[in-house]
Amino acid sequence: MVNQKITCLAGGVGAAKFLQGLAKVVPENDISVIVNTGDDIELHGLHISPDLDIITYTLAGIVDEEKGWGIKGDTFQCLGMLKNYGLETWFNLGDKDLATHVYRTRLLSEGFTLTEVTSKICQQLGLLETILPMTNDPFETRIITDKGEMHFQEYMVKHSMQPSVTGVRFEGAEKAQPTPEVLNAILEASRIIVCPSNPIVSIGTILLVKGIREALRRTGAKIVAISPIIAGTVVKGPAEKLMRGLGLEVSAWSVANLYKDFLDVFILDAMDKEQKSRVETLGVRAVVVDTLMKTIDDKVRLAKVALSC
Amino acid sequence: MVNQKITCLAGGVGAAKFLQGLAKVVPENDISVIVNTGDDIELHGLHISPDLDIITYTLAGIVDEEKGWGIKGDTFQCLGMLKNYGLETWFNLGDKDLATHVYRTRLLSEGFTLTEVTSKICQQLGLLETILPMTNDPFETRIITDKGEMHFQEYMVKHSMQPSVTGVRFEGAEKAQPTPEVLNAILEASRIIVCPSNPIVSIGTILLVKGIREALRRTGAKIVAISPIIAGTVVKGPAEKLMRGLGLEVSAWSVANLYKDFLDVFILDAMDKEQKSRVETLGVRAVVVDTLMKTIDDKVRLAKVALSC
Repeated sequence: MVNQKITCLAGGVGAAKFLQGLAKVVPENDISVIVNTGDDIELHGLHISPDLDIITYTLAGIVDEEKGWGIKGDTFQCLGMLKNYGLETWFNLGDKDLATHVYRTRLLSEGFTLTEVTSKICQQLGLLETILPMTNDPFETRIITDKGEMHFQEYMVKHSMQPSVTGVRFEGAEKAQPTPEVLNAILEASRIIVCPSNPIVSIGTILLVKGIREALRRTGAKIVAISPIIAGTVVKGPAEKLMRGLGLEVSAWSVANLYKDFLDVFILDAMDKEQKSRVETLGVRAVVVDTLMKTIDDKVRLAKVALSC
Repeated sequence: MVNQKITCLAGGVGAAKFLQGLAKVVPENDISVIVNTGDDIELHGLHISPDLDIITYTLAGIVDEEKGWGIKGDTFQCLGMLKNYGLETWFNLGDKDLATHVYRTRLLSEGFTLTEVTSKICQQLGLLETILPMTNDPFETRIITDKGEMHFQEYMVKHSMQPSVTGVRFEGAEKAQPTPEVLNAILEASRIIVCPSNPIVSIGTILLVKGIREALRRTGAKIVAISPIIAGTVVKGPAEKLMRGLGLEVSAWSVANLYKDFLDVFILDAMDKEQKSRVETLGVRAVVVDTLMKTIDDKVRLAKVALSC
């Protein structure tokens, strides 16, 4: 095997689960992951990168598996004290987790790029995979709702996805540049896997960074996407509400349709098998398997499918 | 009683103990405390003000009484994670404590002065006393030792006061301005109490801020100092090593001598009573009492002496 470089496009929890499986069947240093940073938020003066942290903590084996985010065994003493200071504490910041934000914020203020900072964090946590933020530039996903426009994290965490979504706005999307590392990871991969992540605010944001979609169209790599939709709905997160809010059909086909211009293969769940032929009308090969990832065996099995189809 | 405004000059632990007693015998909102900021340090991108925090936490009733600093019941999870990131962790940062530094750093970066930030922190912690940093400007106490020059906290915490002191340098002292609040607190007090703090790096730094020593000479307030020396040595901290390093005699008289140009009364410990007449040759009235503060009763008793002499 000459070139076995695998590059993944990833959001948070769903992608992290898939990557756990992938890291069991591919040498870790052959894996690059391009991660959404549209959810990044500055809180209390700290730069927080939720999806980067979920991916990093998961691959480092320190994630709180029950929650899917944060560090296992973490405490929330600092957050309690921030509350005493009258500060907003709807965003859960664990004490150990905080070290990541403090470290990242300091390095950014010293002039390191988010890509460099992420690389340092991964190195210190012993990761062999290459984790790449989609851009080093500001990029903020804003959700337009019946309660007004808000940061994605405010919609998701502070308001528990309750407001009705009427639109999504991507602040900074016109100016955000992809990094050379991201473009190389796309152009030099033998296979690209679009993880089962939110097609609007996770994969959608990555695709909006200038040059990334074009690179996906140009690369010689085979591109495989895994549907985040199972039985016509999502396992977790706001994808369904966001898709509906944008007037999109919530279905496996609908996700494949968003990726059709660069996609070779679409993996959809057995519960959506009636969508197979419809996906294939998009000019995309469709593979039907069980995609729900509960155990590590599920994750490994799905990774093997994504690598072999 | 028309004017009962009491203004104190304070370092960290020794001053905090005294202030606990004072707050029991004087209405809290009649107390102003001018606090040393020469020990302030930036670590991990966070602005840490050790003496301000010790005073604030103590008066708020949340200090870890055993240590004399930090917040009681605090944990050190974030610090452990910072260590995983390969960062220096010799400075003990508790998880709750961290909230103060995060909050302070954010407010400073937004353009608030250290005086304004301190006022907000005190308000949120329910303090009625007015806590005033000696200056809003950079002021850094550097200790010159046989192991090189270092920040005061490095000498004190990282190197546990082991290097031999050959000098002290106060970076920023020429430029640091006193705040209007500090000058008013000196000029409008009825009584000023110099707490039993380090005469070089706690009280000494306050006196070095331009205009403060002059205001102490000019004020109509009676000025009383409490000796930090008991039985020819210090209860805690590096005062003895620093005084020796600077070629100063370590004695109650020696401390009184540093303050003689503005001092009315010097309270010295009964174990140093042989120094009484020597102190009085400085033109300062000397009062001999037990000054060791172990219990709250000791603190109240000493406060009463400082208020009545």
